[in-house]
Amino acid sequence: MKLLWGTANLFSNPRYMCGGATNPDAHVFAYAAAQVKKAIDVTQLLGGENYVLSGGREGYETLLNTNLKREQDHLAAFLHMAVDYARSIDFKGQFLIEPKPKEPTKHQYDFDVASGIAFLRTYGLEKHFKFNIETNHATLAGHTFQHEIEVAASQKMLGSIDANTGDLLLGWDTDQFNTDVKELTLAMVSIIKGGGLGTGGFNFDAKLRRPSIDAEDLFLAHIGDMDAYALAFKLARRILADGKFEQFVADRYSSFNSGYGNDIEQRKLGFRELYNLVLTKLGEPKLRSGKQEYLENLLNTYLHG
Amino acid sequence: MKLLWGTANLFSNPRYMCGGATNPDAHVFAYAAAQVKKAIDVTQLLGGENYVLSGGREGYETLLNTNLKREQDHLAAFLHMAVDYARSIDFKGQFLIEPKPKEPTKHQYDFDVASGIAFLRTYGLEKHFKFNIETNHATLAGHTFQHEIEVAASQKMLGSIDANTGDLLLGWDTDQFNTDVKELTLAMVSIIKGGGLGTGGFNFDAKLRRPSIDAEDLFLAHIGDMDAYALAFKLARRILADGKFEQFVADRYSSFNSGYGNDIEQRKLGFRELYNLVLTKLGEPKLRSGKQEYLENLLNTYLHG
Amino acid sequence: MKLLWGTANLFSNPRYMCGGATNPDAHVFAYAAAQVKKAIDVTQLLGGENYVLSGGREGYETLLNTNLKREQDHLAAFLHMAVDYARSIDFKGQFLIEPKPKEPTKHQYDFDVASGIAFLRTYGLEKHFKFNIETNHATLAGHTFQHEIEVAASQKMLGSIDANTGDLLLGWDTDQFNTDVKELTLAMVSIIKGGGLGTGGFNFDAKLRRPSIDAEDLFLAHIGDMDAYALAFKLARRILADGKFEQFVADRYSSFNSGYGNDIEQRKLGFRELYNLVLTKLGEPKLRSGKQEYLENLLNTYLHG
Amino acid sequence: MKLLWGTANLFSNPRYMCGGATNPDAHVFAYAAAQVKKAIDVTQLLGGENYVLSGGREGYETLLNTNLKREQDHLAAFLHMAVDYARSIDFKGQFLIEPKPKEPTKHQYDFDVASGIAFLRTYGLEKHFKFNIETNHATLAGHTFQHEIEVAASQKMLGSIDANTGDLLLGWDTDQFNTDVKELTLAMVSIIKGGGLGTGGFNFDAKLRRPSIDAEDLFLAHIGDMDAYALAFKLARRILADGKFEQFVADRYSSFNSGYGNDIEQRKLGFRELYNLVLTKLGEPKLRSGKQEYLENLLNTYLHG
Repeated sequence: MKLLWGTANLFSNPRYMCGGATNPDAHVFAYAAAQVKKAIDVTQLLGGENYVLSGGREGYETLLNTNLKREQDHLAAFLHMAVDYARSIDFKGQFLIEPKPKEPTKHQYDFDVASGIAFLRTYGLEKHFKFNIETNHATLAGHTFQHEIEVAASQKMLGSIDANTGDLLLGWDTDQFNTDVKELTLAMVSIIKGGGLGTGGFNFDAKLRRPSIDAEDLFLAHIGDMDAYALAFKLARRILADGKFEQFVADRYSSFNSGYGNDIEQRKLGFRELYNLVLTKLGEPKLRSGKQEYLENLLNTYLHG
Repeated sequence: MKLLWGTANLFSNPRYMCGGATNPDAHVFAYAAAQVKKAIDVTQLLGGENYVLSGGREGYETLLNTNLKREQDHLAAFLHMAVDYARSIDFKGQFLIEPKPKEPTKHQYDFDVASGIAFLRTYGLEKHFKFNIETNHATLAGHTFQHEIEVAASQKMLGSIDANTGDLLLGWDTDQFNTDVKELTLAMVSIIKGGGLGTGGFNFDAKLRRPSIDAEDLFLAHIGDMDAYALAFKLARRILADGKFEQFVADRYSSFNSGYGNDIEQRKLGFRELYNLVLTKLGEPKLRSGKQEYLENLLNTYLHG
Repeated sequence: MKLLWGTANLFSNPRYMCGGATNPDAHVFAYAAAQVKKAIDVTQLLGGENYVLSGGREGYETLLNTNLKREQDHLAAFLHMAVDYARSIDFKGQFLIEPKPKEPTKHQYDFDVASGIAFLRTYGLEKHFKFNIETNHATLAGHTFQHEIEVAASQKMLGSIDANTGDLLLGWDTDQFNTDVKELTLAMVSIIKGGGLGTGGFNFDAKLRRPSIDAEDLFLAHIGDMDAYALAFKLARRILADGKFEQFVADRYSSFNSGYGNDIEQRKLGFRELYNLVLTKLGEPKLRSGKQEYLENLLNTYLHG
Repeated sequence: MKLLWGTANLFSNPRYMCGGATNPDAHVFAYAAAQVKKAIDVTQLLGGENYVLSGGREGYETLLNTNLKREQDHLAAFLHMAVDYARSIDFKGQFLIEPKPKEPTKHQYDFDVASGIAFLRTYGLEKHFKFNIETNHATLAGHTFQHEIEVAASQKMLGSIDANTGDLLLGWDTDQFNTDVKELTLAMVSIIKGGGLGTGGFNFDAKLRRPSIDAEDLFLAHIGDMDAYALAFKLARRILADGKFEQFVADRYSSFNSGYGNDIEQRKLGFRELYNLVLTKLGEPKLRSGKQEYLENLLNTYLHG
């Protein structure tokens, strides 16, 4: 039993109504800094493996009263301070950002993983942060859970998972327990292929539905949810052991493994050479099916085989 | 009369059904490269001021058959080739990326400006590209038009505008002529504050509604649209000349102009110093209203004064 | 100064977590009935002109535990009881239903005006109820404010207005003060054309933004909002006095005013006669432009003339 | 092998750009009438069991040029003519309406099943029509597939199914082949409980993805899809044979089976009696859990048991 991560709540108290690190008032920034310093101290004391910066209100309600650039500069200063402070006390945990597009704000700066990457790279923070991906936040941003995992993993920035689900027909964070084995299996495949979660883990950031008032409901929810994740993990392992999907995808891109395809990847060719190649030799490409229906059927043989 | 930009259509022909630069087949990549080379040649010949890379199908239909990382690597190679080729022929135009979240693909890699920045910075391309922002693409990605302008401008990457609108109750690109003076005025304020469009401009990438079949409809649409942009420009100039909004925003952040606020911006302070400052001197912040309703009323005095 | 309407809150107290009139427990139904009886008594005592049945939780969280038909039957019984009770105490006020698609429930039975009409007509309640239309509820259901007004007015069931706005890029009820003169002008046109609100009125069911904490913000919000509605009313009156839109629409349908068009409206013709008419005389129709861009331009001459 | 249904395309040809039965031009109405007459003739000739009126453009692009009431009156006249004509030629097939909220129009009059019911009951057509429910249309309207089935079944108006799926993160009709066994199982449970489809059936109104260009893709898609529906049917039968969900739901509403609960359903009690009952005997209700998480877990034992 270990502490997965520590964090500080910079969104519930009215002092943070206009954000913590992005608050227009330097006083609130200072207060937030003090609070996060303390939270890092406590996280270190408890042996926490990660520290999550969840930007619950780091965004804006209206651009009419907002200096977007200055707020982002302040957020960057804040994150640099966090990294510097952690180093100064020898905290070795991984820093995590948890993207969320909105709610309660109209717009958060870490809208999704891509926005987070843009921010981190702009301010030279990309070496110090990974992402804590929440399923329901992914879908509110217009992406699948698996998409956000893949984007983070493609940058070696997949850190941890806030395990829940939302309702795609609803526009707010429902934070439900997730029993959708299909969605979880796809996510597990991408997590395993991406090298796993490192020091991260699965945090059941999920709430019972309001009418679920029995004591046993809390147990049933966690049990059913863990069963779904466990089954998804088993199915993902079987899928990867069989290798059918991976082989299909590898074959699909195989023209880049040799010849001019490989030269493209090695950046040995330019537009001029490719132009001549097409005109003199290649001509019109022959189309190949994407086989989406075949792959969807194949997936069902694992899910309901 | 000058050519605003050139571009190539890498999305309509079936050969691009799985993308151009991100196609899994190196042959299609080569074909797309040849086509863009030619389009850059023609753009230079015609004295075009910009070249737009519109990624109409640079994304995926399903992650089941997709190597997201490899596709993004290929896209980066493609853009580097474009930059290198332009340099080799002494094309001085500005390269532009036009973010679009989806349609016809399920998911495009340049989902929004932030995704574009993440991509460009990841692959060392940020010096060579700016953004061509389309109103309807902004809203399909879950952002306002003004938001995308502000994000691009905050990075000095605001390039050009594809001037149209969508319908926020519909989930596809309607590309309508935009007569919403309120939305356009807010956009114009951000464009002017952001330093203008440089070599960019406004391209009326808008279509008549299907039942608008009279010859005069095309004229009426352009006239009404230009009137709306012109009025918005005049209103934005008046708003900025009066300076009420700018003054309000400047005041709102003024605590960062001196004292410990300025030290935060200068990164002279860290968490430790701010922690002590809060505990020994600052204490609990005093809340200040964000005045959203006041500012919305103020805006109406310009729009309907 | 008069009381516009009375209502009862059947959604905040945990006893209503699964609805009031649609609760699976007859005990809660009885409790809700007692509460609404009392609220009608008080409304009558205060001379209220309407009574609103706002179905805040009259819907479901999941179909897995729901008997949709039985819940709707219960709701109908509840509304019949309300009507019967009102008659028994000689309450003359108008009963109103306030459609809302969701939130906090996953799905409400009075999703929109059309759902409300379907329900009322199914259970023989259509003579006793009109609609209280809330702007933000309209847009959450995928309709414009004006659409919901038109649908209600087309059935002579337009009762009252809950005056606020939402944010079309957000998926929850923000209940903001509405300063969008364009949206309000279109709504006012439809309200006036629909014969007005009868005993209804405009209820500012709007909340300050969370950071609007100054005492004056409440005043500013109401003043700006009332100004916007007043301006919209003036513009709508001018639009209707000029009659350009009405004339355009009347002309557009004028082929139904005489000849076979009028016979269609009078139901004097059937498929057989029309089939012969097309084959022998009419042939292929000549297309006419819908002139959407012209009309949008025309609207702007009123909004920004 | 029999013909499930006939229909006419009143949306692709430009003459229908502003609708068929709701076109502002009586000439187009007449043309549409002639076309549907012919289609009914052919359907009868081929022994079709149903006739579908799919309102692909029966709606509006903008309210600025639309008389919503008059268009709905015309649509009602059209449907009455269809019913009268069918009777006159002794066509015994079932008439079906296929709700769709939008696309290509901004707004269709048969937005969803509830809108359809409102329309049919308003114009006295409810005895002659049932619904052809399409999964992708349900979700575009903000409802689940199962919800639309339940609403139609609750009125004995469930007619037929257009079997496909959409992508809940996309805002247009993708018409994909549906392999989501979970969604289909829930739908099958509701269809069977609702008494089945009568003369209706499952029509695979689904399209291959654009890159699925192999001849075998069409077979694979239909095979995988049929397998998914067949499995869902088997699972639904097992679920209903076990009766656990039905028993749970029956128990949940059991307080309405006797005593004052039954009197409520029989409408033997009114507000006055219930008020006295609550005050003198019942008091505050005791809350009961909705057990959503338990039921979701139970469902997974069938899907992945």
